[in-house]
Amino acid sequence: MSLLLKGGTVVTHEETYQADILCEDGVISQIGSNISTPADTKVLDVTGKLIMPGGIDPHTHMQLPFMGTVAKDDFASGTIAALAGGTTSIIDFVIPNPQQPLLEAYQQWREWSAKSYANYSFHVAITWWDDSVSQDMETLVKDHGVNSFKHFMAYKNAIMATDDILVASFSKCLELGAVPTVHAENGELVYHLQHKMIAEGITGPEGHPLSRPPLVEGEAANRAINIAGTLGAPIYLVHVSTAEAVDAIRYAKDHSQIVFGEVLAGHLTVDDSVYQNPDWETAAAHVMSPPFRPKYHQDALWKGLQAGTLQTTATDHCAFCSEQKAMGKDNFTQIPNGTAGVEERMMVLWEHGVNSGRISANEFVALTSTNTAKIFNIYPRKGCIRVGADADLVVWNPEASKTLSAATHQSNIEHSIFEGMTIHGLPETTICNGKLAWHQGELLAQSGEGKYIERPPYAGYYDTLQKRQELNTPKAVSR
Amino acid sequence: MSLLLKGGTVVTHEETYQADILCEDGVISQIGSNISTPADTKVLDVTGKLIMPGGIDPHTHMQLPFMGTVAKDDFASGTIAALAGGTTSIIDFVIPNPQQPLLEAYQQWREWSAKSYANYSFHVAITWWDDSVSQDMETLVKDHGVNSFKHFMAYKNAIMATDDILVASFSKCLELGAVPTVHAENGELVYHLQHKMIAEGITGPEGHPLSRPPLVEGEAANRAINIAGTLGAPIYLVHVSTAEAVDAIRYAKDHSQIVFGEVLAGHLTVDDSVYQNPDWETAAAHVMSPPFRPKYHQDALWKGLQAGTLQTTATDHCAFCSEQKAMGKDNFTQIPNGTAGVEERMMVLWEHGVNSGRISANEFVALTSTNTAKIFNIYPRKGCIRVGADADLVVWNPEASKTLSAATHQSNIEHSIFEGMTIHGLPETTICNGKLAWHQGELLAQSGEGKYIERPPYAGYYDTLQKRQELNTPKAVSR
Amino acid sequence: MSLLLKGGTVVTHEETYQADILCEDGVISQIGSNISTPADTKVLDVTGKLIMPGGIDPHTHMQLPFMGTVAKDDFASGTIAALAGGTTSIIDFVIPNPQQPLLEAYQQWREWSAKSYANYSFHVAITWWDDSVSQDMETLVKDHGVNSFKHFMAYKNAIMATDDILVASFSKCLELGAVPTVHAENGELVYHLQHKMIAEGITGPEGHPLSRPPLVEGEAANRAINIAGTLGAPIYLVHVSTAEAVDAIRYAKDHSQIVFGEVLAGHLTVDDSVYQNPDWETAAAHVMSPPFRPKYHQDALWKGLQAGTLQTTATDHCAFCSEQKAMGKDNFTQIPNGTAGVEERMMVLWEHGVNSGRISANEFVALTSTNTAKIFNIYPRKGCIRVGADADLVVWNPEASKTLSAATHQSNIEHSIFEGMTIHGLPETTICNGKLAWHQGELLAQSGEGKYIERPPYAGYYDTLQKRQELNTPKAVSR
Amino acid sequence: MSLLLKGGTVVTHEETYQADILCEDGVISQIGSNISTPADTKVLDVTGKLIMPGGIDPHTHMQLPFMGTVAKDDFASGTIAALAGGTTSIIDFVIPNPQQPLLEAYQQWREWSAKSYANYSFHVAITWWDDSVSQDMETLVKDHGVNSFKHFMAYKNAIMATDDILVASFSKCLELGAVPTVHAENGELVYHLQHKMIAEGITGPEGHPLSRPPLVEGEAANRAINIAGTLGAPIYLVHVSTAEAVDAIRYAKDHSQIVFGEVLAGHLTVDDSVYQNPDWETAAAHVMSPPFRPKYHQDALWKGLQAGTLQTTATDHCAFCSEQKAMGKDNFTQIPNGTAGVEERMMVLWEHGVNSGRISANEFVALTSTNTAKIFNIYPRKGCIRVGADADLVVWNPEASKTLSAATHQSNIEHSIFEGMTIHGLPETTICNGKLAWHQGELLAQSGEGKYIERPPYAGYYDTLQKRQELNTPKAVSR
Repeated sequence: MSLLLKGGTVVTHEETYQADILCEDGVISQIGSNISTPADTKVLDVTGKLIMPGGIDPHTHMQLPFMGTVAKDDFASGTIAALAGGTTSIIDFVIPNPQQPLLEAYQQWREWSAKSYANYSFHVAITWWDDSVSQDMETLVKDHGVNSFKHFMAYKNAIMATDDILVASFSKCLELGAVPTVHAENGELVYHLQHKMIAEGITGPEGHPLSRPPLVEGEAANRAINIAGTLGAPIYLVHVSTAEAVDAIRYAKDHSQIVFGEVLAGHLTVDDSVYQNPDWETAAAHVMSPPFRPKYHQDALWKGLQAGTLQTTATDHCAFCSEQKAMGKDNFTQIPNGTAGVEERMMVLWEHGVNSGRISANEFVALTSTNTAKIFNIYPRKGCIRVGADADLVVWNPEASKTLSAATHQSNIEHSIFEGMTIHGLPETTICNGKLAWHQGELLAQSGEGKYIERPPYAGYYDTLQKRQELNTPKAVSR
Repeated sequence: MSLLLKGGTVVTHEETYQADILCEDGVISQIGSNISTPADTKVLDVTGKLIMPGGIDPHTHMQLPFMGTVAKDDFASGTIAALAGGTTSIIDFVIPNPQQPLLEAYQQWREWSAKSYANYSFHVAITWWDDSVSQDMETLVKDHGVNSFKHFMAYKNAIMATDDILVASFSKCLELGAVPTVHAENGELVYHLQHKMIAEGITGPEGHPLSRPPLVEGEAANRAINIAGTLGAPIYLVHVSTAEAVDAIRYAKDHSQIVFGEVLAGHLTVDDSVYQNPDWETAAAHVMSPPFRPKYHQDALWKGLQAGTLQTTATDHCAFCSEQKAMGKDNFTQIPNGTAGVEERMMVLWEHGVNSGRISANEFVALTSTNTAKIFNIYPRKGCIRVGADADLVVWNPEASKTLSAATHQSNIEHSIFEGMTIHGLPETTICNGKLAWHQGELLAQSGEGKYIERPPYAGYYDTLQKRQELNTPKAVSR
Repeated sequence: MSLLLKGGTVVTHEETYQADILCEDGVISQIGSNISTPADTKVLDVTGKLIMPGGIDPHTHMQLPFMGTVAKDDFASGTIAALAGGTTSIIDFVIPNPQQPLLEAYQQWREWSAKSYANYSFHVAITWWDDSVSQDMETLVKDHGVNSFKHFMAYKNAIMATDDILVASFSKCLELGAVPTVHAENGELVYHLQHKMIAEGITGPEGHPLSRPPLVEGEAANRAINIAGTLGAPIYLVHVSTAEAVDAIRYAKDHSQIVFGEVLAGHLTVDDSVYQNPDWETAAAHVMSPPFRPKYHQDALWKGLQAGTLQTTATDHCAFCSEQKAMGKDNFTQIPNGTAGVEERMMVLWEHGVNSGRISANEFVALTSTNTAKIFNIYPRKGCIRVGADADLVVWNPEASKTLSAATHQSNIEHSIFEGMTIHGLPETTICNGKLAWHQGELLAQSGEGKYIERPPYAGYYDTLQKRQELNTPKAVSR
Repeated sequence: MSLLLKGGTVVTHEETYQADILCEDGVISQIGSNISTPADTKVLDVTGKLIMPGGIDPHTHMQLPFMGTVAKDDFASGTIAALAGGTTSIIDFVIPNPQQPLLEAYQQWREWSAKSYANYSFHVAITWWDDSVSQDMETLVKDHGVNSFKHFMAYKNAIMATDDILVASFSKCLELGAVPTVHAENGELVYHLQHKMIAEGITGPEGHPLSRPPLVEGEAANRAINIAGTLGAPIYLVHVSTAEAVDAIRYAKDHSQIVFGEVLAGHLTVDDSVYQNPDWETAAAHVMSPPFRPKYHQDALWKGLQAGTLQTTATDHCAFCSEQKAMGKDNFTQIPNGTAGVEERMMVLWEHGVNSGRISANEFVALTSTNTAKIFNIYPRKGCIRVGADADLVVWNPEASKTLSAATHQSNIEHSIFEGMTIHGLPETTICNGKLAWHQGELLAQSGEGKYIERPPYAGYYDTLQKRQELNTPKAVSR
């Protein structure tokens, strides 16, 4: 069955205009005025509504095994939440245990994700190094549609990638046409400060931000960027949460480097006062890394989005319930790190971005969908509204409003970091692969309808990098 | 007659892909694989060639009356030069004398430009102020398709706009949805330094850059940006030539302001050593304002383009021949300011941008065409390759090469600031309004075929500005 | 009678050490351990106390005729307040009316200041320009010990110095070895915004900051700095109150320019919420220019002091009582601009600087005394503790504390912008010209004991400027 | 025998004035006009000459065992060279082998240095970590006058300090009141690039800078600064050679951090074209780390000195002769790293700093002597001209000139990186510990007359750091 959206206003990263949109066989087949209705076509009147590319959340962790437990939202509940919020694709993470073959881990995650309601793809984490890792990276890129690899600069004694691994892996990424990405926190400093806090008797959630102060992120951001810059590789920083990291990205971009920065809806709107909450459970519910920050960092993050220093928005959706959080009752370092948000991301950005006058509706589209598609090389298949593109769309009702709450969210956990925030302008209908997937509060998609997204290597910005490599090839002096 | 381009590679600001392009009735009517040839259609085999949007030069001065003479290239020779270089549209300037009604000047320029071979539009300069000027601005925006006004911060005792004029005019621009633009040089300092140089016996062209050092531009750039920022208006800086001005733009962009910066092909590649040329005529041929700069500024300008701090490239094409330049034989302040370049701009940017690894071919398109179209609100009619867009295209042969020279350029003057520069990759065919306008070294367009481009007010970024204005409306405290 | 301070801790801008200090004939004659007591010498036991150079406030306006009235604190009450707060010297301003000869105004101010209790000197304002002004500047420098000239970039239609005046005067300053100083606010923008606020019905004190937003200062700071930089002159910015101005100074210093910045105790600690006070009188009491700012600017100012971007602290002491402030009851633009502070400056800086861990006690001395003495070329006569230096000292009791209040201050006005601020560490004894001037809450100095301070031209930093001028002298190209 | 300098001009970091200086018992006993000559006093007429504090070179490596050989200049020849150039004190480095007890290494270096002609002190390197290292640091600070510890972030598999060591050692430094210092280069990147160059067949000295590009230093500078900032420790960066590292220091200083930067005379004046020298021996003679840089970095370094971002000048004097350099004939990574300069440092800074108009003579003193004394807490015993200070002085003849050359230098090696540089203004007489040590080209000092300088912990800037630590002590939330 086809689907015809009539009477809406199309909003892309570049333009706003009136048009009908016809979706057939999972793709957009026509855009125009007064499209006539083909047979077997459902017609949706979207007069007064905005039609935008479906959101892409480039950073989620569904059913992640982490810190001795497994995240509560799996690929089913997690992608339902995504669809409820207008997000039609997620990029999740395959995270091998150190010494585990990358391909084995990749297969595991592919199995887990088979039940997805929305589309999905995978970054693969590099948590250790030897020749087989290098080989598997190549296989993943060439045979499995992976074009990005993640590196955790924190989590010492677990999945931390030390500088030698970063150098080796970034070099391999460059060779393969894949984007290296980093979680930027200095693991040695975190380790030191965690022990210091515990030694000083600070065992509650308030110790969490104290053990990961802003400079810890600023340092690692700088390091990753400089390593990439030295090697001639691009670099993508996930969940940038501090003014310092924004400054590091800006500095590199202002010096000809190709750097991308992602920011979470949570870091844009929640500050570190949450860790002072007298209710342990509430404070613990906000434990994630990097932690929420003093308020002025939010301003820096918004300015970063406005200036183009940061290009994507994500959630790091990794849902742990109160019972899981309680594992760290006596020691904040044992609280599973993670919060939800895949459902709320676009709404939060609409309210605090568009409604506040910080960004335009077109920039909203760029920041929630298009830029991610471009960076990870699935544009213009995803992230745009164009004949031939995948029919992943969200219909936004600028007149509707609601108040966010854990009581009504789709996630399987009892807390929402956005609890009580009122949103003016809501996703009303989500179309995934050309079908109604979520409509007026009702889930219409089926488990398994979400498709795996293959992402080819060598996005646009690689041309420039390769040309530079070529020109910069050093030469021996003849003596 | 229609035109079908077969076998080429389409390059836009976002993508590169293989496709045929059919142009009918002045617009692009089809893009696709193996388009069948309609009747009455000329077919051009462009295998191995790149098809890009025709260039838009947002800064030219054809047949400008200036400093007691008139620029040698008129709208005929100037637009022929444009077409020869792949540029299908120019935005020229209506410059009223102080006290001259804006509409009168506008009509004058429209008459002069009727003979154009390529498309054209006009910024209108604000060289004086009273209520009639404000009224005429409104008429120009509402009835004549003008959406940008220019302000000269230099040229004291002539066309200089002092701060009170800037404040009044920028406010009016904001109200009308038009972009204020500035030539940023501190006119008082220039005036002081010109007199100082002459007093010290420095009367040759070497005095020109000494009377307009980089800080003179940095100051004015900062001033214009801050005035616009205070009023909530956008601002566009023409011919940014210094690291200081780039820094000023970057600072404002990093602080949520909407600022645009233009750079000239000349400032990117020619340095101030030209003023030391022992041949007076050659040195004088390079006299333009702002002057060519010490080499390190070029690096800052390129970095500015790479980082998105600067968005457009232009030429300030304003051609004076040697005889005209000789008016300042004994006093450099009398040398008519101006150089040519509308023909060479895209070639220079290709060689020093794309071939050098500084920018990608997609960025090349953005910087020579798309960004200008977006800022001045003629996108997606211009600046893109899309069904329905104007068929203004350039076919680029990446394998061809030539050496630039005044001996072979189209301009009516005896010097080229790019003399001797070899270019690898050339515009081979220029299509304007769906017709072959320049093909393999031959002019095919007719005088008068160039069309006036109406530019509507309120470009995309105005949404955000208006929302901000709304939210920032101050309130009285009740006491 | 001589004076011997025994048992104290000497704190200078560089060092902290134990020593006795003997003051004879107005100067420090001995510093050492266990100085024996000469005849006719008063001995003061200062065990446990800190002895620091007496404060120098480089920015006061005693009995200033301004906005149709005269400031309430004259050179008597104003310098008593200074002594009460540990400040032994002020630099006030001679402000000629436009067209008034500078020397005439200078003589007037010298007369008014004859009754001073503390030492004083004068910056002279350049409020208009012709050859006689230039002549008088020379006379003031050569014959009257003036080495600094002030320029108001605001106050259009009154004392505003336009760019042509700045260029002429800065050039003359450079020639004379004097420091140009500026009040940096763009007068045209202020004028425009004042009219806009009034037109919108915002007539109360809350309109004051709205008419002088931060960019208005940032613009003017940049302009003054760039004009000075172009001419090769040094520049001193009075009352820097915004992050933008700090950034402008930093940028110039990072590019080899010699720039100095002054900050007021008020801007460091008071924010713009005061203008929202429902009590008109209280809100009006805070009207000064530049206005108090949103809180985050304070952070930028402190960082500026810590990094050396700003070097001096002042007050802009210009006291208007409630009756005077009421002149603007119906129109904030008529409220006389000014607040008090000469008494509280050092205490405020001690509490919020030293006690807060922002600066060391040595930096406190530099910021309240030494740096001003160096910049205005009266070091090491003033601003240090050294044999041969003027015996201007303050004895600080780090253990004492009090709460600041208009109820107890020396100024003749009914409000204090520091009302309610508790200070830990107080000036207990002030020694001026070798005599006890203020001791434990009691005034011991006499009217007229304050001395006029002649300041010779050509301070240390002029060597470098002169060398640069020499090297940069441009040359004609021989053709 | 005492020494009386008559008729000279005293130049300190703050002032310039005429005075005679009497030196008795190794210290300055009188400064004044027309000092009468005590018995047994040598009188030196220094009319027309400048008397400045003797230079302090905070970075030398005399007779260092390194890369399989030992530096050619030992504490005898090295300190003779120092005296010849006006430098009266050096701070050298104790560099324990990994696993070697710090105290053992310290004793070894004390023995080697006993023959010194000039004064000396030692930084001690932290090349490994366990509790004994921590204990030895404490002993060195408390019993041996060491107040600074060095960390090499490069030299993987040798003396490189990894992040865990930096964290532990910086924390210990803070506790002890000692300054951590770093050689900032990312050792993993250097290791990777060295292997890459060799693999690509680049085995000559031109491979050296290619294996240590500027970002490699920028990264490490940022890392060290951020680690120190996180811990609340000060940090001193040795041999800052890149714009990137200057920017990193500036950023931290602008954000309230206490950071110091040192620059080498060589990096200020020599660029990386030396590595392209067709003569292998000459190219190899310039191999040191960090390497000489592209020219624009020099500009950044000078600007850093001018703005106060960098505070000290040094040489990293570590002399290897041609025979030693030849160890790397077939592999640049085997060329012993090091160049000479302790003799030329002050002359180079005079010529390129003072004579070029970049800095004043007072700034020259600050940058060659005073600032180092302050940072390493030996001020005002060293680094100043004051009664009671050590009589370490240099008499500078501003009229003399010479051309630097290996043919005439004191160092034991065949190359000078300053070969052919002409200096206008020379050190004529060097006075060390109150005695003529070098006079008009003749060595008068004896071996062993140089004294070990004990440096006490807790310099001025520690007050502020400690206050901050106190205020920032985190607290547990009561739940």
